[in-house]
Amino acid sequence: MQTSNFTYVIKQVEMALRPHFLAVCKQANLTPAQYTALSVLERRPGLTSSELARRSLVRAQTMAATIEPLLAEGLVRREQDPAHGRRMLLHLTPLGVERLAEIAPRIRAVEDLIVAELDAESRENFARYLRSARHSLDSAGPRPSGRPRPTD
Amino acid sequence: MQTSNFTYVIKQVEMALRPHFLAVCKQANLTPAQYTALSVLERRPGLTSSELARRSLVRAQTMAATIEPLLAEGLVRREQDPAHGRRMLLHLTPLGVERLAEIAPRIRAVEDLIVAELDAESRENFARYLRSARHSLDSAGPRPSGRPRPTD
Repeated sequence: MQTSNFTYVIKQVEMALRPHFLAVCKQANLTPAQYTALSVLERRPGLTSSELARRSLVRAQTMAATIEPLLAEGLVRREQDPAHGRRMLLHLTPLGVERLAEIAPRIRAVEDLIVAELDAESRENFARYLRSARHSLDSAGPRPSGRPRPTD
Repeated sequence: MQTSNFTYVIKQVEMALRPHFLAVCKQANLTPAQYTALSVLERRPGLTSSELARRSLVRAQTMAATIEPLLAEGLVRREQDPAHGRRMLLHLTPLGVERLAEIAPRIRAVEDLIVAELDAESRENFARYLRSARHSLDSAGPRPSGRPRPTD
């Protein structure tokens, strides 16, 4: 690969990662969007559904279908925003926290696999380069309207 | 982001990259798979359809639909493998080479955007880390059968 082939190799990495991530989600009986939603809520409790959609990399319109089974299963709860009575905020329940903790070692194994060949300094650099690429790409057009803007 | 969040951030980068790549392909009147197939054939002339599918990150079964319009438009030609009469090998035509050259500046602009904030050494390291991640992930299970194995 030349250093001018990032588009292609980023897609390859994403595709190589996908079956590993899907296997973890499947074993946990969650869709990838559901796992992502739970993990986002763990880091950022009290998001609205549309905020959670944006951070879970799904469209706001599809978030309901993602979150309903999590509410039904008792992994996530909705509560009124004390500051805005009509706003509903989402939180993990203790059961949701527990479920994530059960999955954590398998997610950690995927994370470790991605950087298996890299030393600690390279891992930090790799994380920094990825954030930089995300920032550059997100800062520039084109951006189809309605596409969730990933941030974290 | 912690350095233990690669799964999420790689997906974000791929999603942030997608609209830029799609816009270039659309302007060139090609699907992403078609652009990828042309660019792979430029680097590696004389692939079979199934080899091209694997390197174009699509399933062998869907390669025909990808390649037929390129054959019809005269961007790609098929010729018999001189060594194996029944094997057909794919090559860019001069028109295909010309089309890729027309698109090249816009692809280059996307590539430059991905690494816009990085110096030359960091770009090289980033490319190396991505290849390393691809290698680690591809070397380990799980791999659903039929999924194209990206290599280059």
